[in-house]
Order: sequence, then structure tokens, then C-alpha cells
Amino acid sequence: MNASKASEIKNWRREQNGSVGFVPTMGALHEGHAELLRRARKENDRVVLSIFVNPTQFNDPKDLEKYPRTLDSDLSLARREGVDLVWTPSRDELYHDSVGGGAATGVFNFRVCEEKLSSRFCGAFRPGHFIGVLTVVMKLLQVVKPARAYFGEKDYQQLLLVKQMAAAFFLEVEIIPVPTVRESDGLAMSSRNVRLTAEERKQAAFLVRALRESNTAAEAAVRLGEAGFRVDYVEDFEGRRLAAAWLGEVRLIDNVKI
Amino acid sequence: MNASKASEIKNWRREQNGSVGFVPTMGALHEGHAELLRRARKENDRVVLSIFVNPTQFNDPKDLEKYPRTLDSDLSLARREGVDLVWTPSRDELYHDSVGGGAATGVFNFRVCEEKLSSRFCGAFRPGHFIGVLTVVMKLLQVVKPARAYFGEKDYQQLLLVKQMAAAFFLEVEIIPVPTVRESDGLAMSSRNVRLTAEERKQAAFLVRALRESNTAAEAAVRLGEAGFRVDYVEDFEGRRLAAAWLGEVRLIDNVKI
Repeated sequence: MNASKASEIKNWRREQNGSVGFVPTMGALHEGHAELLRRARKENDRVVLSIFVNPTQFNDPKDLEKYPRTLDSDLSLARREGVDLVWTPSRDELYHDSVGGGAATGVFNFRVCEEKLSSRFCGAFRPGHFIGVLTVVMKLLQVVKPARAYFGEKDYQQLLLVKQMAAAFFLEVEIIPVPTVRESDGLAMSSRNVRLTAEERKQAAFLVRALRESNTAAEAAVRLGEAGFRVDYVEDFEGRRLAAAWLGEVRLIDNVKI
Repeated sequence: MNASKASEIKNWRREQNGSVGFVPTMGALHEGHAELLRRARKENDRVVLSIFVNPTQFNDPKDLEKYPRTLDSDLSLARREGVDLVWTPSRDELYHDSVGGGAATGVFNFRVCEEKLSSRFCGAFRPGHFIGVLTVVMKLLQVVKPARAYFGEKDYQQLLLVKQMAAAFFLEVEIIPVPTVRESDGLAMSSRNVRLTAEERKQAAFLVRALRESNTAAEAAVRLGEAGFRVDYVEDFEGRRLAAAWLGEVRLIDNVKI
């Protein structure tokens, strides 16, 4: 089933007796998302996928505009992975509490804010990004009411923040981390990879290698800079090495266990 | 039943099949709270009362310190009104996500923020107050999962904000407004009234009279000033006249339909 209104999702939800696994996405689905869906399929009676390019988490309007939209192939992938319900909410419904010019302005009223982790790492370079993420995830979780929600480890800071939010607000959901799925050369799968030029695509795999093969975060940053990346940050945090770096107009993020 | 741990409340909640009505309070219960409980009792299979003096909504530490605590008589009132479950959460559990020195510092990490209504009226004079209110109400609602939650119209701005928050985050709960209960001379019942001196207590009833008997908000403000109140604001908003004014060290709020 494919539905856009929150009320339809709520009605469907009320009819389910078993457990619901939830995979929230921004579409442009790839093998990384497929892996989340397979985990959800295995561990729950029902699987819900949401597809919503959340405007409030884009600090850069150009990035929002260029974000790939591939709904038809997303729906095929969902069918293939046995998804029971695909939710494609509208901006106007999800942000009906927007101020002034509606959801499109990105000015939204009620927010989930966090004072600590959300301003570091990616948050330091993308002001407001995690407020947008946490707010939309809170809304989605309240409608879908899953037993489990699945998040990729590629967005590691996001995963940590969503986990912390669920604990802080006593949400019933279990937040399940799923290991990053990589291309054969090691590049972490990402919807933004399609925006790399052929040349950049070849270079891109060096990101994870630099993280793995350097002794320190600082060393990795230097090596990435020498290889032509514009580095936002490389930092070690709670047993992971986190990084964000640009190739041309594309910002890549990745992280590895240390 | 009386319990303090969120996990106990959640376990109890899972065992309930019928509807749950919820009355969140800061204790120091009076006839206004009793009215909320009676409405909840009438409209639901089970009634939950929470008693928690929420530190994050006190912008003034002295006010927090002086806030009346009357747990024994609160529990008697709860018994009398047929409450099924009294939840008395601890600061440390409700704000386990606090930053630094624990919940006592009032520095808490995850928050529900609002960009518009929360900075007006009382919000303009009590910075951060409504962030504290919304955050704690969100937490309480996630644990209790009521079908209906009851809020007094006396705290009208709070009522509006909680209603808007429930809509913005697609919460399942229905927010039920309950008319203000007044003393025989018209003074709105409030836990802070016990802090008025005998002289101030007599004057205090003039607040609602000034709101009712003035043609404009400005006129009411002038009359209150002449009567010895220190007026924070009197303003007309969406069909109500809202006011906050001090008598000595006690801040009174009230509102009437216009």
C-alpha cells in the first residue's frame, strides 16, 4: 500500500496487531536502504517505509533542489523488499505548523532541539540540520508508532542523536543501527553519490581508506587534503572516526570503527 | 497506585485496555485540579495524575524553591477523586539527558521548542518557561499515552501551546480544556495563592474584575496599576483577554472570554 496522509497511516496502524518495523528515508533508495528494509522485514510482522525529502534539514537550498528524486524506482525497490506500507507525506501536512509562507520556506514552528551533540561535527557545518532531522523523525515516529526503527551507521551522528532523543522523550521505539553498505571499492553508499563526476567517483573511495589507514584523525585530514578533498572535519568520537569532506560540489560523509 | 519510575507507569499502561485520562500537575492540588480529575474520571476508564514540580519551567530559582509542596494532601485528594495511578517522577529520571550537573541545574539537553506563541505574553516575561512546559508535557505524554489530557483554562497560553504541540507532532492524545475554577470572590484558583498575604488576598480578586469590566486591555492594565498591581501585560488574543500581574512577591495570571 502507498499512502500520503497521516490519517491513512494512523488508520492502517490501528488495524495492525503485530510489530511494525520502520525505515524513514528521503528516497533515492539504494542498496544501503534495501539492507535496512531487509533487517526490518526479518525482525517485524509489518514493514513501513517513509519517503520524504525533508526541507527543514537542508541548510543549503541548492542541495535540497538537487537532491535526487526517483520515486518510481523507489517503489519498485519497496515492492521487491516486501514493504507493507509506503508513506509519502506532503510537506504541507507534515509541517502544517509552519510559520508564514508555508513549509516551503523552511520556517517551521515546533521543533525538537538538542543542546550538545547536534552542534558538533556535521552540525557545526550545517547549522540547523539536526533540528530538522530530529523534528521530522519525532513526527514520523508518532504517526507510525513502530516497535523498531532502522537507521544506517553511515549517518552516525544522526543515529546517535535519534537514539538519544528516543531515550530523552521515553519513546517506546527501539532504534536499530545497521552497518554501512559499501560499493566494491569501499565508498559508502549514498544518494548523493550519483552527483559525483566520473573522476570524482574514482577518488571518492579514498575517503574510507584514509579514515581506516591513518593513525590519527589529524593524519587522515591531511591525507584527504593532499588527495584533493576539501575537509570539513575528521574527528574521533566515542570509538568511531567521523569525517565529512567535499569532492567538487558533493559533500561526502563516512565513519569507521577505531 | 502510586509509582515514581517511568518503567512502572509503562508496565501499568500496557495492562490497560480501556481509555486513559491524564491530568499532569505540579501538585499543591486545589479545587481546580479536582475539577480536571472529575472530568477525566467521567470521560475515561482509567485516570492518571502526575505530580512533578518541573524545574525547567521555572525561570526564577526562588519561585521554584518557594513553590508549595503538599504531597500528603495531594494523595488524599487523588484518592477522593478516584485516581487510578499517581505518578511522582524524579527529576533525575525525567531529565536523565541533562547536561553537566544533573537535572537540578535546569540545563537540559533535548527540548521541544516553539518559535511563535511561546515568546509572547507570559513567555516574554518568563524566558524559557514554555520550552520547559512543552518538553515535560511531551515526556509525560509519551509515557502515559492517554486518550485525553486535561488542562485548565487558567493557564490559557499553556493550553494553546500544548494543543498546538500535539497537532504539530501528530500525537494521538486529545487535549481537553477545562474552565477555570474560582474562589467565591472570583479569584482564579492557583497553587501560588497561598503565598499571598491576607491583605493581598483581598486585593487579588480585583484582577478578574478588571479584565471583565474594562472595555479594552489597556484600560484594564491602567485600573490594575491604580489598584496596586504591578502589571506584566494585559492583552487581547484570539477572543480572550490575558493578563499577568504581581501583588507583592506573587505573580498572578488570569484570562476571560471577551
